[in-house]
Amino acid sequence: MVHKSIETNIKEIDEPLNYFLSLGGKRLRPAMVYLLEKWYDQPIAHVESESVAKSVEFFHNFSLIHDDIMDDADLRRGKETIHTKWNQNISILSGDYLLIEAYKQLEALPQDVLLPIFSLYNQTAAEVCIGQQMDMNFESLEQVAQTDYIEMIRLKTAVLLGFVMKATGELLRLPKTELQTLYAIGQDIGISFQILDDVLDTFGTEQVGKTIGGDILQSKKTILFTLVCDSLNGQAKADFISLYHSDDADKVSKVVALMQDLDIKAQAEKLADTYTQRVHQDIASLSMPEGSKAEFVDFVQQLLNREY
Amino acid sequence: MVHKSIETNIKEIDEPLNYFLSLGGKRLRPAMVYLLEKWYDQPIAHVESESVAKSVEFFHNFSLIHDDIMDDADLRRGKETIHTKWNQNISILSGDYLLIEAYKQLEALPQDVLLPIFSLYNQTAAEVCIGQQMDMNFESLEQVAQTDYIEMIRLKTAVLLGFVMKATGELLRLPKTELQTLYAIGQDIGISFQILDDVLDTFGTEQVGKTIGGDILQSKKTILFTLVCDSLNGQAKADFISLYHSDDADKVSKVVALMQDLDIKAQAEKLADTYTQRVHQDIASLSMPEGSKAEFVDFVQQLLNREY
Repeated sequence: MVHKSIETNIKEIDEPLNYFLSLGGKRLRPAMVYLLEKWYDQPIAHVESESVAKSVEFFHNFSLIHDDIMDDADLRRGKETIHTKWNQNISILSGDYLLIEAYKQLEALPQDVLLPIFSLYNQTAAEVCIGQQMDMNFESLEQVAQTDYIEMIRLKTAVLLGFVMKATGELLRLPKTELQTLYAIGQDIGISFQILDDVLDTFGTEQVGKTIGGDILQSKKTILFTLVCDSLNGQAKADFISLYHSDDADKVSKVVALMQDLDIKAQAEKLADTYTQRVHQDIASLSMPEGSKAEFVDFVQQLLNREY
Repeated sequence: MVHKSIETNIKEIDEPLNYFLSLGGKRLRPAMVYLLEKWYDQPIAHVESESVAKSVEFFHNFSLIHDDIMDDADLRRGKETIHTKWNQNISILSGDYLLIEAYKQLEALPQDVLLPIFSLYNQTAAEVCIGQQMDMNFESLEQVAQTDYIEMIRLKTAVLLGFVMKATGELLRLPKTELQTLYAIGQDIGISFQILDDVLDTFGTEQVGKTIGGDILQSKKTILFTLVCDSLNGQAKADFISLYHSDDADKVSKVVALMQDLDIKAQAEKLADTYTQRVHQDIASLSMPEGSKAEFVDFVQQLLNREY
C-alpha cells in the first residue's frame, strides 16, 4: 500500500526510498486508520484514509532514515540502512524528500479537516524531533530520571500514534472530547509499547535484526536503566552507573543479574501496565459499538504481549 | 523579523537555529512578500504576510543547513556552519526541525488559500530537493549540458522565488493568470540571478565569505563551465575538461584565460539577460499601478547588477 510509490525520476532519491519503504515493519500506524474505520463502522473516503495512512508511514520512515544516520546504525529491520547501502548525503536528502512527501499526502484531505490535521501533524513532527534530540542528549548523561525517560519516548514515538488516531477521528468527524480520548489512547499505547520494547531488548529472545542485550552493550538509557538507578543508592548506584558505561566484557550478564536481583523486569511491566490499563478505560468510554471495543482491546493486548 | 524565534527549550535545537537565522543574508524571499504588498497597494493582514515570509525564509535556511553538510562546507556567510560549530547530528536534526517550523507557519493562512499555497509549497520543497540531488550528481559527471544546468538551478533555487511571489499573489487574491505570471517572474529572476552568481564567482571582486575562482578550484559545474564545453570541440574540449578536473596549481588562471579568449563572461551575461528581459515583459503585463511596475523593474535591476 505505502511502498513503491516514490517517483521523482532521480534514482538517488527513488531507489533508496522505495528500498527503505519496502523493508516492511509492522505498519502499525497506517493500519490504525483502517482499523478505526472498521471499528467505528463508518466508511471514510478512500482518498482520505489513504492520505493519513501514507502520511504517517512516510513520516515514520523519514524519522528512521535520519535517526539511522544520527545513531550510526548499520542495520534496520535486519537490512542495510540507506547511509550504509548508499551514502550519507543520499540518506539526508532522501529523508528530507520523504518528509516533504509525507506532507504532500495531506493535500488530499477535505477542507474542513485539513487545518486541524495539518496543525496536529506539525506539532507531532516537531515533538518527534525534540524527542530524538532528548534521546541523543541522554547518551552523554550519567543518569536519566524516569519522568524524563517517559517524556522522551512520549515525544520520540508515542505522539505519532496519538496523531494517527486523532487524525482518523477527524476524518470520522467525531466530537472533540472523543478526539482527545483517541489521542490519549494512541499516546499511552505508544508509551507502553516502548517500555515493553526495552524489556524485550534485555529479557526477550533473539529476533531478526535485534541483538539481545544490545541496549546494555551500547549503554543506552532505557526504562530498565532508570529503574535500576531508582532502586539503588550510594556506592551501589555509583558502581552500577560505572559498570553500565564500561567496556567490561561481561557487562551484559552482570547488568542482567543485577536487574534480576532487583526484579526490574516486573517493575517495568507494572509501569507499562499502568498505561495499558488507562488505554482499556479510555476504550470503554468511546462511542464505537461494544463489539468493536472488545476487538480494539484484543488488538492492544496482542500488540503489547509480544513474544519473549 | 524572522530570527530569534525558535523556542523548543532544547538548546541543541534552539541555539544552532537562532545562530543560523541571525547570520543575515539578503532575506530576498521574505522581502518579496512585503514588496508585492506595497507594489499592488493592497494591504495583506500581518499574520498572513508573516506566515508566507517566515515560511519561505525558514525553508531556505533549512535547505542551506542540510546542503552545508552535504557539501562539507565549513563557512556560510563568512561564519561557521552548524555542523562545524556544533556537530553533524545537531545539523541534521535542527535542519529537520526548521523544515517543520516552516510548514507550521502556513497554519496561519486563511482557509480559502491554505490548500493552494500548501500544495505549491510541497511541490516547491520537493523540487528543491531534486535540484540539490542533480547538483550533487553533476560532481561526478565529466560534462553537463546547458539545459540540464539551467534545469538544476531552476529546481534548486529559482522555484522558491516563484513560490513566494505566487503565494503572495494568492494572499492578494489575484486572478489565476496573474498568479502564473508572478510565478514565472520569480523563477526567471532566480535563474538570471544564479547565472550571474556564477559569473561573479569567477569574474567578481573578493567578497565576505567567498573566494574568487572557488567554483573553478572545486571543479564545480557552473554555467561558465557548460558554455566553455559548448564552445570547444575534440581535443581542445577534452583538454579543458581534463584541466578543469585537475589539481593543476595554476588551474584558476588557466581556466580564466581560456574563458576570456572565448568571451564566456559576455555569453553568460547574454544568457542571463534573456531571462531578465522576459521578467521585464512579464512585469509590464501585471495589474499593479504603472509606478509600481517601474519600482519593480528597478528592484530587479539592482538585484541583478551586483558589484563586480
